[in-house]
Amino acid sequence: MRQINVGIIGFGTVGAGTVEALLANRDLIADRVGSEIVIKRVADLDLLSDRGLTIDQGLLTTEAMDIIEDPDIHIVVELIGGIEQAKQYILRAIENKKHVVTANKALLAEHGKEIYQAAEENGVSLGFEASVGGGIPVIRALREGLSANRIDTIMGILNGTSNYILTRMTKKGLAYREAVDEAIERGYAEDPPTLDVDGTDAAHKLAILVSIAFGAPVAFDRIYREGIDRLTPEDIRFAGEFGFCLKLLAIARNLGDKVDARVHPAMVPLDHIMANVNGVYNAIYMEGDFVGSNLYYGLGAGRRATGSAVVSDLIHLARQLQQGVDRLMPPLAHVHSEQRQVAIQPIEDVSTPYYFRFSAVDQPGVLSKVSGILGENNISIYSVIQKGREIDGSVPVVILTHEAKESSVLKALSQLDQLDVLTDKTMMIRVEGT
Amino acid sequence: MRQINVGIIGFGTVGAGTVEALLANRDLIADRVGSEIVIKRVADLDLLSDRGLTIDQGLLTTEAMDIIEDPDIHIVVELIGGIEQAKQYILRAIENKKHVVTANKALLAEHGKEIYQAAEENGVSLGFEASVGGGIPVIRALREGLSANRIDTIMGILNGTSNYILTRMTKKGLAYREAVDEAIERGYAEDPPTLDVDGTDAAHKLAILVSIAFGAPVAFDRIYREGIDRLTPEDIRFAGEFGFCLKLLAIARNLGDKVDARVHPAMVPLDHIMANVNGVYNAIYMEGDFVGSNLYYGLGAGRRATGSAVVSDLIHLARQLQQGVDRLMPPLAHVHSEQRQVAIQPIEDVSTPYYFRFSAVDQPGVLSKVSGILGENNISIYSVIQKGREIDGSVPVVILTHEAKESSVLKALSQLDQLDVLTDKTMMIRVEGT
Repeated sequence: MRQINVGIIGFGTVGAGTVEALLANRDLIADRVGSEIVIKRVADLDLLSDRGLTIDQGLLTTEAMDIIEDPDIHIVVELIGGIEQAKQYILRAIENKKHVVTANKALLAEHGKEIYQAAEENGVSLGFEASVGGGIPVIRALREGLSANRIDTIMGILNGTSNYILTRMTKKGLAYREAVDEAIERGYAEDPPTLDVDGTDAAHKLAILVSIAFGAPVAFDRIYREGIDRLTPEDIRFAGEFGFCLKLLAIARNLGDKVDARVHPAMVPLDHIMANVNGVYNAIYMEGDFVGSNLYYGLGAGRRATGSAVVSDLIHLARQLQQGVDRLMPPLAHVHSEQRQVAIQPIEDVSTPYYFRFSAVDQPGVLSKVSGILGENNISIYSVIQKGREIDGSVPVVILTHEAKESSVLKALSQLDQLDVLTDKTMMIRVEGT
Repeated sequence: MRQINVGIIGFGTVGAGTVEALLANRDLIADRVGSEIVIKRVADLDLLSDRGLTIDQGLLTTEAMDIIEDPDIHIVVELIGGIEQAKQYILRAIENKKHVVTANKALLAEHGKEIYQAAEENGVSLGFEASVGGGIPVIRALREGLSANRIDTIMGILNGTSNYILTRMTKKGLAYREAVDEAIERGYAEDPPTLDVDGTDAAHKLAILVSIAFGAPVAFDRIYREGIDRLTPEDIRFAGEFGFCLKLLAIARNLGDKVDARVHPAMVPLDHIMANVNGVYNAIYMEGDFVGSNLYYGLGAGRRATGSAVVSDLIHLARQLQQGVDRLMPPLAHVHSEQRQVAIQPIEDVSTPYYFRFSAVDQPGVLSKVSGILGENNISIYSVIQKGREIDGSVPVVILTHEAKESSVLKALSQLDQLDVLTDKTMMIRVEGT
């Protein structure tokens, strides 16, 4: 059997994890593939940093083109991240009829269509298991394991940094800022952790999952996203009193002709399997029309876990190349999917139950005014908590509603903001998984 | 693209689910495969029962050989269960160079080696996603998703019936017999539910997972198994006081030259992700040297979930057959794996922490005698609960130990059984996941 030659562009965290897995489990991998996966070249601008790996220095180059233009290399692994440069490398490699493996979620979410089309036109395979959920083989689950199903629901905890922050706020009562500082200190967050906490990273990953589940790329910009920075320990405590916890969720629902896809903090019932996904762990919960509820859980980031995902793609590709096959299915696992587009439902049309926390002056009639405005907007109250305790001169009034339409909620909120008896903007959190 | 013709042997629960998924999602599946998967023939001795499906009666036959010997059929799906007949059908189909998909865990666990060898010799593919974990794509996770890893640990809740029984005993305080009756009444258990509750079914599934993870068949008979019928609500309550719940676990650990593989009730910490797998759900927890901890969760049985798994194998096969490929990898996803065997460590060599519940007479010195015997056998006590209340004239004394060797525990138990101050056999439960 012939050996499979791999070139790796990007020798940072994920690149080092990939090389480490290929070296550490070389015999095991050869036993699984039936031939050797050989690292032919590794390109990075930084050749000096110590990655803690013993690798032949002759394999290193600062020129990505040494890999992309090398006729002996079968698979190009793109691990530099970012958009423009990575896209150029990948498209050029595809033109050269090389198979491509990438962990680049931002690139696939924002420019996937172009890359999928190029891969199809050139008849090569594209692996991107590492782009979502780190080491969790969720791309494979969607492309293959659940392929008999119409996917109805996806609910993901897709960003380990924000999940760590929310877990610390929940378990230790930390304020948002304290939990962020701790995450930065422990190396779980960058400083500042913007794309992690504002929902962008999770939305990138959701876009990829939705594309496979529903068989076509989505317009990433249309995915509504909202971050976790406005959440308070107080809201987490109230959520607990209602039997919920707070998670940053990436949600997609199949609406037939379009998809409800959005990323925002959500209250999840404590007895939902997603409620137990804590710390830096990720999880993807999915419902299919035949399989029912499925959950996939694991480390969503990190050198070794992400390296595991990249190498699983290399093994998959090596097995098919052994059989002389260039591609087993299109990137999104649906025929001609790269030529279609999935429409996203506007956030205003979403319906969920809602949690509201009002900061009210401590005088009679507040609840009547608030519930009056909710009623006028067809928002029906399910449960209320009002406690005597004042916080900064205000009394919190917390309301859980029945399912209501987002457009009605937005209208009600703008009316509520005008009330004299409310001293601060109302906190609104959507409820999922009930 | 050519159509793929499938013949299904066995039109019971799983067969009906398979046909239902192929019919209900026909267009979706064609879009994912690139051509149609056609049900060419369905064989069953019972052609009269109503499966709630609209299917061309001309496709039905009572003769499995009509499928196995049909030159137009590419894939034979064996869903009759049982050993001998199913084995003959599968081996004959393989000889006829047909690809085989099966849900038959008992057959693969007990006679897998012969079937894997036949598939390899004849160069055909064998799909068995439905044999473990119902709709959960865990076979695919092991064969592909985690293929970069040395698998270190597998911990599975692999039998939905026994998990349902334990869940009802835990949440409602039911006695074992009451929970079994309820499970039978609700259709979650057969009457009697022997193979589900005695650990045999879970051991079958564990044998299959171990074979893939460690790259060779195992001698099924060497897997230690112990059922849940001796567990009492009292033990579940005491477990709770120590911060544990009770699960029927299928466990495998990589010991390098051999594997620790066993099925028995175990105490699992309440904050372990496995503790939240309740009711008829299954879950497989795995640790790989790169991926770290992974969990796969879903319905482990049922017509639709198992149909989802069978059809995922058909889609996988259809995609590769489109490309003219007969096999992408051996059944156990390791080269020549069917010619090797994984050695199993004897249960006597296992080391875990243990839970003991002693039924003691209510008089001084009991704890001293009990702990004396434990100490003589190098079993060190971690925690003790002794409460005043008498149950049937005895006082329960509950002890949690540090890690101890099973052979020492067995020796200690036989000495303890002779003590006059103990009025009943000692309950012993192993502790996992700490």
